[in-house]
Amino acid sequence: MVRVMTADADLYKEFSVFAGRLADAARAETMSRFRAGGEVTNKAGIWFDPVTEADREAERAIRRMVNAVYPRHGVIGEEFGAERAEADYRWVIDPVDGTRAFVCGVATWATLIGLEKAGRPTLGLIDQPFSDERWLGLPGRATYRRRGIESECRASGVADLKRARLSTTDPRREAYFTGDEAEAFAAIAAKCQVARFSLDAYAYGLLAIGEIDLVVESSLKRHDYSALVPVVEGAGGIITGWKGEPLGEDARGRVVASASPALHKAALAILAAV
Amino acid sequence: MVRVMTADADLYKEFSVFAGRLADAARAETMSRFRAGGEVTNKAGIWFDPVTEADREAERAIRRMVNAVYPRHGVIGEEFGAERAEADYRWVIDPVDGTRAFVCGVATWATLIGLEKAGRPTLGLIDQPFSDERWLGLPGRATYRRRGIESECRASGVADLKRARLSTTDPRREAYFTGDEAEAFAAIAAKCQVARFSLDAYAYGLLAIGEIDLVVESSLKRHDYSALVPVVEGAGGIITGWKGEPLGEDARGRVVASASPALHKAALAILAAV
Repeated sequence: MVRVMTADADLYKEFSVFAGRLADAARAETMSRFRAGGEVTNKAGIWFDPVTEADREAERAIRRMVNAVYPRHGVIGEEFGAERAEADYRWVIDPVDGTRAFVCGVATWATLIGLEKAGRPTLGLIDQPFSDERWLGLPGRATYRRRGIESECRASGVADLKRARLSTTDPRREAYFTGDEAEAFAAIAAKCQVARFSLDAYAYGLLAIGEIDLVVESSLKRHDYSALVPVVEGAGGIITGWKGEPLGEDARGRVVASASPALHKAALAILAAV
Repeated sequence: MVRVMTADADLYKEFSVFAGRLADAARAETMSRFRAGGEVTNKAGIWFDPVTEADREAERAIRRMVNAVYPRHGVIGEEFGAERAEADYRWVIDPVDGTRAFVCGVATWATLIGLEKAGRPTLGLIDQPFSDERWLGLPGRATYRRRGIESECRASGVADLKRARLSTTDPRREAYFTGDEAEAFAAIAAKCQVARFSLDAYAYGLLAIGEIDLVVESSLKRHDYSALVPVVEGAGGIITGWKGEPLGEDARGRVVASASPALHKAALAILAAV
């Protein structure tokens, strides 16, 4: 296993602790609104949407902390856009990935916190507060922690589509998939052992602990996938665009993540034609 | 709220405690195999499937306990069929509902334990061990317990499709839906606020705590839905076949559960045409 062996090691240890604090701060904002009884009105009768509130308040908390501790770092968030987007280090965050899961009371939404250096994802944190699961990806390794117990992440290594457990957030045409994408997904699903839906970023966490083998998605934004890259790669998995290119080059936000090089190649052989 | 006011009350208190013990016994068999590293071989090289093992061992444990404590009660299980199916009381169990979720490491599978009297579901327990969530439905009430904290279940009461959060396990044609069923589901989904997939019985638990408003499914067996009826009804929800008939009358296993009478009527208006 490749570990961080340079002077960066201390720096990434510091960043890891800080990312954990950001996730803790987000938990306070999200968990108080999860399964909290649906829509509510304030005294003026204005309607609030709990997941939007959770998203915004968590992102505000994260931005305050980054601006206080690393004022020269950039921040790119789902809710409030970019600050110092050209900075060498930038935090790329999605306080509530999986808002549909959140509003349906399903604990597969996640807080995503990524750190990019010179535009390349180098640290990623996936946090699911209800089940108390937290993934941390760094160059060369990824860890999974639940209820205080930490373990190394390792993708399953499954190499054949016929043994693969597949995930996508929504298989229907015109949800995330457009044009021929839904057919390409269906072609892969027909070859796989089983398919699961509606998992959003949580599926990439499951891939990193060997429980999902293949994730195929489209229409993802940078804040949807940046934090996932170090987790998947740190676990020995592979994550690219549908043509095998680094993420960020495809304007349609098409992402494929695999538990082994052979499985990735088999998936790309079907997806690259689209 | 209607409560059990007859001499049955003490009996159902006893049955409730016993159902909890059955679920505890099932947990020991399921949790030791959940996220346990995928397929494994025994010394003879024969392949085992952890979820099948979990299903079988949990059902064996449950049958042993029923046969020891209530030897005149019947048992109908997914794995080993029916014993004393004509008994006045019979336990209808599915040790691992949501086997696909189980094999993918997603904690939305559940252990289902139902008790029918004279063929009518009267007690239902839904247990999710990883997230430590347990629902118990009885005539007139349902409760939700997590980490030792118990609360009364109450469906959301959402009455309009456009506000409804919809669930089905797989929206694709020829997965669970056959013939025109997938189109009927799509017609409902197009009118709803949001749809979630892959939740199996867990969706009915979420309906009972006000987080999901409508569940539409097909191809369910008795052990898939029997335990859900007291939970949904005890929370003030409605659960019937697609024509509004009591469950069990439709050979195709079509089930619709709703958070309010008005929502149920709106869903039936679309489904009854199929």
